[in-house]
Amino acid sequence: MLVVMKKNAAPEQIEAAVSAIENRGLTARPIPGGERVAICILHNRGAVDASLFMQLPAVKEVIPVTRPFKLVSRESQPFDTIVDVGGTPIGNGHLVVMAGPCAIESEAGALEIAQIVKERGAHIFRGGAFKPRTSPYAFQGLGEEGLKILAKVRAETGMAVVTEAIDHEVFDLVEHYADIVQIGARNMQNFSLLRRAGKSRKPVLLKRGMAATIEEWLMAAEYIMEGGNNQVILCERGVRTFASHSRNTLDLSAIPVVRQESHLPIIVDPSHAAGFRDQVVPLGRAAVAVGCHGLIVEVHNAPEKALSDGAQSLYPDQFLELCRQIEAISSVYKTATNY
Amino acid sequence: MLVVMKKNAAPEQIEAAVSAIENRGLTARPIPGGERVAICILHNRGAVDASLFMQLPAVKEVIPVTRPFKLVSRESQPFDTIVDVGGTPIGNGHLVVMAGPCAIESEAGALEIAQIVKERGAHIFRGGAFKPRTSPYAFQGLGEEGLKILAKVRAETGMAVVTEAIDHEVFDLVEHYADIVQIGARNMQNFSLLRRAGKSRKPVLLKRGMAATIEEWLMAAEYIMEGGNNQVILCERGVRTFASHSRNTLDLSAIPVVRQESHLPIIVDPSHAAGFRDQVVPLGRAAVAVGCHGLIVEVHNAPEKALSDGAQSLYPDQFLELCRQIEAISSVYKTATNY
Amino acid sequence: MLVVMKKNAAPEQIEAAVSAIENRGLTARPIPGGERVAICILHNRGAVDASLFMQLPAVKEVIPVTRPFKLVSRESQPFDTIVDVGGTPIGNGHLVVMAGPCAIESEAGALEIAQIVKERGAHIFRGGAFKPRTSPYAFQGLGEEGLKILAKVRAETGMAVVTEAIDHEVFDLVEHYADIVQIGARNMQNFSLLRRAGKSRKPVLLKRGMAATIEEWLMAAEYIMEGGNNQVILCERGVRTFASHSRNTLDLSAIPVVRQESHLPIIVDPSHAAGFRDQVVPLGRAAVAVGCHGLIVEVHNAPEKALSDGAQSLYPDQFLELCRQIEAISSVYKTATNY
Amino acid sequence: MLVVMKKNAAPEQIEAAVSAIENRGLTARPIPGGERVAICILHNRGAVDASLFMQLPAVKEVIPVTRPFKLVSRESQPFDTIVDVGGTPIGNGHLVVMAGPCAIESEAGALEIAQIVKERGAHIFRGGAFKPRTSPYAFQGLGEEGLKILAKVRAETGMAVVTEAIDHEVFDLVEHYADIVQIGARNMQNFSLLRRAGKSRKPVLLKRGMAATIEEWLMAAEYIMEGGNNQVILCERGVRTFASHSRNTLDLSAIPVVRQESHLPIIVDPSHAAGFRDQVVPLGRAAVAVGCHGLIVEVHNAPEKALSDGAQSLYPDQFLELCRQIEAISSVYKTATNY
Repeated sequence: MLVVMKKNAAPEQIEAAVSAIENRGLTARPIPGGERVAICILHNRGAVDASLFMQLPAVKEVIPVTRPFKLVSRESQPFDTIVDVGGTPIGNGHLVVMAGPCAIESEAGALEIAQIVKERGAHIFRGGAFKPRTSPYAFQGLGEEGLKILAKVRAETGMAVVTEAIDHEVFDLVEHYADIVQIGARNMQNFSLLRRAGKSRKPVLLKRGMAATIEEWLMAAEYIMEGGNNQVILCERGVRTFASHSRNTLDLSAIPVVRQESHLPIIVDPSHAAGFRDQVVPLGRAAVAVGCHGLIVEVHNAPEKALSDGAQSLYPDQFLELCRQIEAISSVYKTATNY
Repeated sequence: MLVVMKKNAAPEQIEAAVSAIENRGLTARPIPGGERVAICILHNRGAVDASLFMQLPAVKEVIPVTRPFKLVSRESQPFDTIVDVGGTPIGNGHLVVMAGPCAIESEAGALEIAQIVKERGAHIFRGGAFKPRTSPYAFQGLGEEGLKILAKVRAETGMAVVTEAIDHEVFDLVEHYADIVQIGARNMQNFSLLRRAGKSRKPVLLKRGMAATIEEWLMAAEYIMEGGNNQVILCERGVRTFASHSRNTLDLSAIPVVRQESHLPIIVDPSHAAGFRDQVVPLGRAAVAVGCHGLIVEVHNAPEKALSDGAQSLYPDQFLELCRQIEAISSVYKTATNY
Repeated sequence: MLVVMKKNAAPEQIEAAVSAIENRGLTARPIPGGERVAICILHNRGAVDASLFMQLPAVKEVIPVTRPFKLVSRESQPFDTIVDVGGTPIGNGHLVVMAGPCAIESEAGALEIAQIVKERGAHIFRGGAFKPRTSPYAFQGLGEEGLKILAKVRAETGMAVVTEAIDHEVFDLVEHYADIVQIGARNMQNFSLLRRAGKSRKPVLLKRGMAATIEEWLMAAEYIMEGGNNQVILCERGVRTFASHSRNTLDLSAIPVVRQESHLPIIVDPSHAAGFRDQVVPLGRAAVAVGCHGLIVEVHNAPEKALSDGAQSLYPDQFLELCRQIEAISSVYKTATNY
Repeated sequence: MLVVMKKNAAPEQIEAAVSAIENRGLTARPIPGGERVAICILHNRGAVDASLFMQLPAVKEVIPVTRPFKLVSRESQPFDTIVDVGGTPIGNGHLVVMAGPCAIESEAGALEIAQIVKERGAHIFRGGAFKPRTSPYAFQGLGEEGLKILAKVRAETGMAVVTEAIDHEVFDLVEHYADIVQIGARNMQNFSLLRRAGKSRKPVLLKRGMAATIEEWLMAAEYIMEGGNNQVILCERGVRTFASHSRNTLDLSAIPVVRQESHLPIIVDPSHAAGFRDQVVPLGRAAVAVGCHGLIVEVHNAPEKALSDGAQSLYPDQFLELCRQIEAISSVYKTATNY
């Protein structure tokens, strides 16, 4: 339920409404909006009697939230969330490009790739320091050393950095070094990690699980927002289907649906969806055309030598062309009168 | 196996090579190319001895076809097939738009919608006369009367028309009235109908089955080409997955894969993939951005009154905007140096 | 809607009710039951006014059919349908075993396998004469010659025979030679073929499509029953999923659901579901344990020499063991007080 | 790679082989077998030269492990692992039944249900204390209080108890109170939690992820075994597909495949696969018939009042019947000469 305050509601009136809600054993979460404040009521068991709050001073109306995800829903917040990452805005009206190698392999390598992607159009640098691997015998990443290299990349290039946190311990480290903390597809319903992310002050990039419905995905985001962190960026990366010509099946219809249901920004990872380099540029174009807010792609200066996921990493020239194309496509879309 | 003739091979030399192949109990299918003719050997059981044909006059080389689909494969025909439908080219370098109602409901209605879609950018008119319906009790289409209306639409607007043939009997009728014969997703492995299509002189629009792999789909096209009909247009329309926010999951990675594997044109049907109007324009943009050769979309002047699939039919204004947007996106892609 | 007649309703009263229904432009389909007749109303557009028929003589009650499949539904017919095939009952309380090679390859081979499976426990002989094949270049079956061999097998062994009809033309032949006409998974929504099956007097074995929901499957059966053929046997044979350790994923939960929703018998094909011999016996046991009415399995005396699907064909000894095991499992289930 | 010692190898010879392996920077893991010891070599990068170890005293042979999962594979350990839980053996030749409510709701309730399931055939009590919930607003379990109730149940009934650990912190608690630590489907690739489980001395019940291939699942088990914990019990609980008549699609073909590939015991959870009570008994029968080593099922004395998953919980009478039926089916299977 949403208690919508009048435009001219005074801070103490908002405070009073919050108190009135919490005095009834409920959780009140004020959502500052462009024009007016709304207070979302959480943790109610069963229906809440609207008339309890209608009479409070400066309350305009009390409206139900019909979706199971409340803070994530457009019902609670009609305007788009823009997440600011070191000066780079992510969300409606902006097109962000995150790029870099699958895994950080060395300082020299990371710096070289960072320079390459920056010159060609990337805003944010990606690179794995702690890699979730199907096999316990596969390369697991450089660990904290990788995070230090990411910090070096930021210092040298000015690009913000994003990398994955695979558990609580790693989250503390990643939160310390990185600008965006990624929660991977396999951890999308690691609720304990989501709660940890909810306590963070860093933006969180939440990938969709391989078999997650949109509702489950938005509920995972709700865990983070419920914890107090509003800076959630969603990322579609393909779902598992019978099709085997690509590693996963990129579900682009998720983008218009998520944009309708939620105010959160949503980007697309065509690299992990495809699994094969030749599909990445076409799928990247398609993702921007469908209306997402950016891409996260794997680029390597020597993909055939990469320690992981080389087959899906773009060559620098392909990445340049991708950036040029999506910029042009984005401008077509932005001037559209409807989407 | 492919017997590639020299550039300057004389017609009688090609004839002689064909005879040499058929004398061995094999089927020879000459594929006229831009520069040289290749002869594809079909219906061989087990491996064929290449040296048998290497010595023939004007034979340049004998190369294996590694794919199970032979005539459909780029190995047999490296250049793109362009299907000409009443002056409208479909294939590489062109962007075709097919539009119209799900089902033909009346002459007046069809003509009105045809005029609407023509003015807004459609090249070809679509409309079902025989509808494959899950329920025997649902509206099954106007039948031959619907085909006559389609012919009327063509006469009045000059647009070619495409409609579905659901069985042999209907195929004869559709072949008579329509410019393109559609084989629907549910019939993609109706091999008997595919053989019938192979004997037709009309272009065939072959939709991908709901659970078909790309290889199965291309093998279905092979049935048609094996029968002697080279004018096959493929159509991606979504596959069935666990996701329920769209009717099917549009598999756009199929487009770069099919374009790499085959010379046949491929278009996309965002309407049946989505099932909901609000997803159609974004998915249509994405389909063009990924590199398909055109769209087939449902448009209705009064979707809420449509006898079938109204929820996925675009309003005329949405269709206009879609045509404008894909035209612009297509120009971005065409100038790309790689895809 | 179902017009339920009283127990003692006279034939002319039933006749009168049918006439009253048809006089209103509806289709009336009497369903003879154990105790009383019910008349199912079909082809109504929108709701029918129950009060129209409540007043008719000998009408006990008028009840709605809530499912989209009407004749197939347990609402229309609460008692189980038993299909009799040459003296072999198929349905509740019976366990039928259909067995034989994937394709009929020769008369001698068919007779040998038939003898083998009969001795080991099969009631009905299976074997393909017309094979639906993904590739136009693969072995397509012996055609009518294969059907003649099947007739010979029946003459020599006394076993009824089941084989697939892949189109209208083949249906006429199969109907002539075989005891059960199979409609394969790829044709489950070949509505034209379903209508043809509806006009047949032979029992029809309707396989579930690879991506069909249970509702779609039962609607396909409705096409057959709507045409006037009540002898439909359903067959679960696996659905297409991301899993690749078996050819398809056998969906055994379909059996209790279908048994609850419909009165039609349902059997299971573990051979096509598995694709690998080693899974067939365990899955066959599981299918009987879950409560199906029988199995259809592939058996070959020399699987490694089979022209198609040899990898999934059981050796004679495995088949013997399977028959022994399912017989024992079936007796456990039959004595169960609930299912 | 597997260094297989001779039957009469002395402990110091085995020791020497281990040292020889580790001196080369590799990890040696001795696997005590019935007749002889084999030493599995782990963490090699690239191929290992077999000749290095062939010459060592008492080495019989050096054989490659072809599967990516090594310790889990039957190649490393041909005989079946039997996990002993408080005197209840789990694995080949035994049929274990774990039963109880979805979540522990109160001490009185838990004790009542425990008595009910024990009397009717359960060997081990299940019940969630920490529940992974899609929504942050749903009942999350009683936490440590629930674990204490489980300990009480064990004390009063003598049944061992199994419950889920959803993160590291919870793992410590569960390990303290419970006899088997469950890792749920959503955490199957929570590699950090798997490593924690590898350090535990308690048996681990590892559920298959909703979209996990069998290889990914066995690799998850490999994480646990690699950490030093050999007591892993696998649990199939359904995968996500397009089918919606059951919550998930139970993939019973996984059981014969896993039994062929691995020596670990495997049980089935029909309750979470089905989602609906009426499917649980049939699927439970099928699971035992296919050859699994046991079931874990939800039972409640008053399902309609359960705080979670009531719709899939069996009534006590249904559970009794299930136990009776699977016992009978199991005896059919045990006497089978092949599976």
